[in-house]
Amino acid sequence: MSIGQSIPRVDAWEKVSGRAKYTDDLVDRNALIGKVLHSTIANGLVKKMDISEAAKIPGVVKIITCFDVPDIPFPTAGHPWSTDPAHWDPMDRRLLNRRVRLYGDDIAAVIAEDEISASRALRAIKVEYEEYPVILTPEEAMKEGAPLLHEECPHNILKHTTVEDGNFEEAIQEEGLLCFEDVFETPIVQHCHIEGVVSWAYMENGRIVIVASTQIPHIVRRIVGQALGLPWGNVRIIKPYIGGGFGNKQDSLYEPLNAFMCTQVGGRTVKLELSREEVFCATRVRHSEKIFLKTWVRPNGRLVARSYTAYSNQGAYGSHGHGIAAKGTNVFRQLYRDEKARKVDIYTVYTNTAAAGAMRGYGTPQAVFAIESHIEDIARKLNLDPLEFRFLNVMPVGFVDPFTKNVNYFDSFRQCVEIGKAHIKWDEKRERYAKQTGPVRRGVGMSLFWYNTAVWPISIEVSSCRMVLNQDGSIQLQIGETEIGQGADTVFAQMAADTLGIPWQKVHVISTQDTDITPFGTGAYGSRQTYVGGAAINKVALLLKDKILRYASEYTHTPVANLNIINGDIVLVSNNNQTIVSLEELATDTLYHTEHAEHLTAEATAQVKSNAFSLGCAFAEVEVDIPLGKIRLLELINCHDCGRLINPKTAEGQVHGGMSMAIGFGMFEQLLYDPKIGRLLNGNLLDYKLPTILDHPRLEAHFVENPEPTSPYGTKALGEPPTVPGAAAIRNAVLHATGVAINTIPLTPHVLFAEFKKAGLI
Amino acid sequence: MSIGQSIPRVDAWEKVSGRAKYTDDLVDRNALIGKVLHSTIANGLVKKMDISEAAKIPGVVKIITCFDVPDIPFPTAGHPWSTDPAHWDPMDRRLLNRRVRLYGDDIAAVIAEDEISASRALRAIKVEYEEYPVILTPEEAMKEGAPLLHEECPHNILKHTTVEDGNFEEAIQEEGLLCFEDVFETPIVQHCHIEGVVSWAYMENGRIVIVASTQIPHIVRRIVGQALGLPWGNVRIIKPYIGGGFGNKQDSLYEPLNAFMCTQVGGRTVKLELSREEVFCATRVRHSEKIFLKTWVRPNGRLVARSYTAYSNQGAYGSHGHGIAAKGTNVFRQLYRDEKARKVDIYTVYTNTAAAGAMRGYGTPQAVFAIESHIEDIARKLNLDPLEFRFLNVMPVGFVDPFTKNVNYFDSFRQCVEIGKAHIKWDEKRERYAKQTGPVRRGVGMSLFWYNTAVWPISIEVSSCRMVLNQDGSIQLQIGETEIGQGADTVFAQMAADTLGIPWQKVHVISTQDTDITPFGTGAYGSRQTYVGGAAINKVALLLKDKILRYASEYTHTPVANLNIINGDIVLVSNNNQTIVSLEELATDTLYHTEHAEHLTAEATAQVKSNAFSLGCAFAEVEVDIPLGKIRLLELINCHDCGRLINPKTAEGQVHGGMSMAIGFGMFEQLLYDPKIGRLLNGNLLDYKLPTILDHPRLEAHFVENPEPTSPYGTKALGEPPTVPGAAAIRNAVLHATGVAINTIPLTPHVLFAEFKKAGLI
Repeated sequence: MSIGQSIPRVDAWEKVSGRAKYTDDLVDRNALIGKVLHSTIANGLVKKMDISEAAKIPGVVKIITCFDVPDIPFPTAGHPWSTDPAHWDPMDRRLLNRRVRLYGDDIAAVIAEDEISASRALRAIKVEYEEYPVILTPEEAMKEGAPLLHEECPHNILKHTTVEDGNFEEAIQEEGLLCFEDVFETPIVQHCHIEGVVSWAYMENGRIVIVASTQIPHIVRRIVGQALGLPWGNVRIIKPYIGGGFGNKQDSLYEPLNAFMCTQVGGRTVKLELSREEVFCATRVRHSEKIFLKTWVRPNGRLVARSYTAYSNQGAYGSHGHGIAAKGTNVFRQLYRDEKARKVDIYTVYTNTAAAGAMRGYGTPQAVFAIESHIEDIARKLNLDPLEFRFLNVMPVGFVDPFTKNVNYFDSFRQCVEIGKAHIKWDEKRERYAKQTGPVRRGVGMSLFWYNTAVWPISIEVSSCRMVLNQDGSIQLQIGETEIGQGADTVFAQMAADTLGIPWQKVHVISTQDTDITPFGTGAYGSRQTYVGGAAINKVALLLKDKILRYASEYTHTPVANLNIINGDIVLVSNNNQTIVSLEELATDTLYHTEHAEHLTAEATAQVKSNAFSLGCAFAEVEVDIPLGKIRLLELINCHDCGRLINPKTAEGQVHGGMSMAIGFGMFEQLLYDPKIGRLLNGNLLDYKLPTILDHPRLEAHFVENPEPTSPYGTKALGEPPTVPGAAAIRNAVLHATGVAINTIPLTPHVLFAEFKKAGLI
Repeated sequence: MSIGQSIPRVDAWEKVSGRAKYTDDLVDRNALIGKVLHSTIANGLVKKMDISEAAKIPGVVKIITCFDVPDIPFPTAGHPWSTDPAHWDPMDRRLLNRRVRLYGDDIAAVIAEDEISASRALRAIKVEYEEYPVILTPEEAMKEGAPLLHEECPHNILKHTTVEDGNFEEAIQEEGLLCFEDVFETPIVQHCHIEGVVSWAYMENGRIVIVASTQIPHIVRRIVGQALGLPWGNVRIIKPYIGGGFGNKQDSLYEPLNAFMCTQVGGRTVKLELSREEVFCATRVRHSEKIFLKTWVRPNGRLVARSYTAYSNQGAYGSHGHGIAAKGTNVFRQLYRDEKARKVDIYTVYTNTAAAGAMRGYGTPQAVFAIESHIEDIARKLNLDPLEFRFLNVMPVGFVDPFTKNVNYFDSFRQCVEIGKAHIKWDEKRERYAKQTGPVRRGVGMSLFWYNTAVWPISIEVSSCRMVLNQDGSIQLQIGETEIGQGADTVFAQMAADTLGIPWQKVHVISTQDTDITPFGTGAYGSRQTYVGGAAINKVALLLKDKILRYASEYTHTPVANLNIINGDIVLVSNNNQTIVSLEELATDTLYHTEHAEHLTAEATAQVKSNAFSLGCAFAEVEVDIPLGKIRLLELINCHDCGRLINPKTAEGQVHGGMSMAIGFGMFEQLLYDPKIGRLLNGNLLDYKLPTILDHPRLEAHFVENPEPTSPYGTKALGEPPTVPGAAAIRNAVLHATGVAINTIPLTPHVLFAEFKKAGLI
């Protein structure tokens, strides 16, 4: 069995040797080069565009302006389509926009023989704008009289929802309740995947083929069809290896425009590659949220009622929209159990910043930062042990979510916390650091987190898989779920190998998704790969195994029930699993048998209707230099119950990556906009402070392997959860060190200095 | 219904616009360049090779010699594998050969950064040979004491078989029989496909990927595995569009060597492209045959017994070997029915010429040239009408082949001949040209032909297909059978469309075969595409239709039996085929249904156990300039019963192409070898006389559409048959014009002058 073994990544050799082919490695030598003209105002209208000088530049093949594109609004979010219009994502995007909604909006595109001609043409296009006031925050956007970014959304509110569990007004009347209230703010951050946004498109037999760095090929196919008004079957997406996505590529970014561009030059190949600066300003970002929390609690620490109000900054276009704020409220509603009631009131609001979309964690890092900071503060104020306070109120074992019917089967929170406590030496340090004085102090903090796996029942969850048996008993595995650097192909190979009974080396995963050929699956997001993809792999491997054993039964004149496949051999169950014929010999026979030849393949769709809780915690230790306003992160420990580990090493890698993102989110990263003109001020890798190796402590990942009953391999989400608890743990460690509760991240010197000053520490 | 309609080729636009991608269009920009060193002797041994100077040339990465390759003999013929060793093709090939067997044998290979370095290195390699006498014909090869090309084959005979139907010796004792005897000789010719022999190979995840211009990707996979001693699943073949093959690419040519080369440079991409001159001397050719026919006939024209003795020149390596001579004898044994007995005695013999392999017609052009010339001569000598003489003896309606159980269902011969006669004005011209004198004379001649479809029961016949339904109700079709320029993809689309009930425009044929993904099928040969591929398409389309209708039944609450698909709509059979829901709406629903989502696809293997007779004739009119020894072909008419026509225009194109090849075979083409050193003298497109447009008359193709009962679409072979009867028809027309029976083709001035002189005409 390979499951549970840290087998090397199936793509390791290709990737470390530089031989793995990414989108740009594969582009046609004669491809035309496309470039996008971005607006130099943040809010307004393109009145006129003069392309006459640009068109004269040698090498320029075609210029397309916002006046030339079809007037078809389309969505971009990488969600499965729904046949119910109520579930459609906002359709507020056009291929190019006359109505400019952010500094860097797409207003024209140039196609040229080479990069230089294309760049020269961009500079030669003259644009006349009508300008409106710039809006950068939900507060400004919702003000009476603010210009509307999208006419159909009054007050620039994309969506507003409220939920009430229990009778809130009645609950808070209970006598003797203490009430705590806080406001938290999280920054706009960007994914910063290594490989940028790149695609190339051409026409073949009247259809459009797009090779793109995307997490969601089958969804991009649909969106390109919608955007261009084409039958979806006329679009084909091919996804090579990709260098990270983190949710930014769970969106249809420039594929629809790229597709349109190639149709404007007779179907010739057009490549469209964004610079890093364009990726920052014109793709997607994490929603900045302002979260108001109010909690009514008994003096003994039992939560009675809480309210959660949030304003989520959507930026200029709808993208994943309200889903992010909504997923945040699920943490609020499920992580802790109020005895009586709970209330949610959330707004997603358009502004003139970069469109906010999916990003690892999908709203839960923001919510957990707020919730776990708030909880810590209450414990502190009530003088309760923060861990015991949490355990008193946390989602209990056996809890069943009334909406999804998810069950919390195990005492994972406590198990994870015990591991974290031991590794960070919690009790000792909590005591030791309690009475520090002086300018440099240490502290430990922690945070729980909640994340549910995959997107059911908000959207459908399906994954289809196909397996093809070769003459040597090896198989190919095709699946719609995508390898995006996270190691999906490796765990897919392990799952298929174990279910079929063959060595993992005999599973050849087709890493390239091609919507023409690859069974339908919606791609990489929602930490769904092992959970939903695993369901498909299990189903198809069992189907293929059944076909193999039936053929083996014919071949060996032995009942199917007495046959099994172990380590690539057909064995006799009754005879101590003695080999009766190798799968290689049998597979060869299937293809060449003169009486009954058959290519043994299997294919099926698995539909998943559960979304397992993935739970855990983070522990952090910091050293705070109070006068400098500077934090040194000494230790960060994540502990996860993500079910059974398919591959401990790749799981650890996932956690390390997520922890790194949490460090950036909590301590360093933030996109800053010029308040006057709405221009992004630090949209590059020099000015945008992504944490480097020097900012990282030793990262520790631990696991509690409670097998998830709803998954055939006992797994649940691990892709996103590691990103979630880090920021609150660090913030709570700073609180422990300094006694100062800071409610705004990232915890930059800028923020810390002001807070420490306010607290009288400096 | 699209079957029977001349819809445009599905790849027409790509191909005429130059946008279709062939193997060389797709090669990696950084590929290394491989080149092969060919021997400069025809028979002998490489004693020593000095690569020291070559290795010093800048840009040279690696040199591999015949001393460096694994000693694994492998076959190259593009036949399905057999689990019975008795059916294996000759395994007499190594990646590079120390034992040199033809002038141009592969003895070393260079891998360099560019073409020039590679070419310089080839010239710098010093080789020392031990030379043996050169053998160019079977007669020489079989002589006592001739050096053996392959030690395991005494007298250089690869294979010798005899067959006797009836009691031959007794049959020829009948009193009053007349006996006729003739010897015929056919040339070595080459396929001359437009796209040469080209491939490139690299390693990925420890496996070898080869992109190659081949007719038989799944077979090449197996052969590369054999040649390199690798599990077959570790090899992946990708076949882009290809520019013709005609059987040369029904062989594994340089793919195994290319694969090995890439393994010698750490898996880097190595491209191996042959020059036209290399294609001529070092790939495959048509077997030259010398055929001895002897016929015993009653004065009334009834054939009583015949014998057929042939020597087939195999060239240096086994390739398709004896299969070619054997298929020729099937014409002999089936086209005419001797009343009493028949005898076959055939030899396939190694010589120091290019290895002979598959070529359009697969031995039948040679056999039909001999048989139909001989029959014509007998008719003439007996003063019988040549057509009536043929009908008296031809395979009758209702004939059942005792071996294959094939049935001759229709009177196709007579129907085809009637059409040909009418179009060429046979009766009028036979009479008019009978009494010509003078130096320039005209004549008309004809030939029947026989061809059986596909290769069962000699090999297995299987084809697998997969169909994938898109949201817009269109499908992708994947099949192992390959588009090689013949229009296969187009007729596949028509077949799938009609069986499913959707417009042909909605069938997207995946033209690129990829052995990792494409369902197993053995490729393009044996004129099997519509016949065997059609069986798979029909089976899978019915499976997919069934799945669609079951889903439609769920969706519409209507019994499956009352539903059908017509023109892309689900219709109510009971209500006059009124549309109930479009397939587009239904297909979209299948993928996104919250309760029951499923990607509707279907896949299956069809095994075919029949090989329908494909029959017909050719009529030719010539003008012979006797003193010049020159023939002008005035008219060539082919008439075929290939069953139902799927696409009349592409069928006509097939026939035109085949007729052109017959013209070359009968009148112009012949590879000539230096008798002393065995070097090919005219291995280039200047000296090898491929007929040009100026040598072509108007080509006429006619069809008799008797639906073949063993095919789901009523089709049978059309790919190869058009090549078969032309040479004999032309030769018989020359006989009619001049009274001179010429038994050697091509009918060049060289041959004609000698024959006319011998006949006293000049």
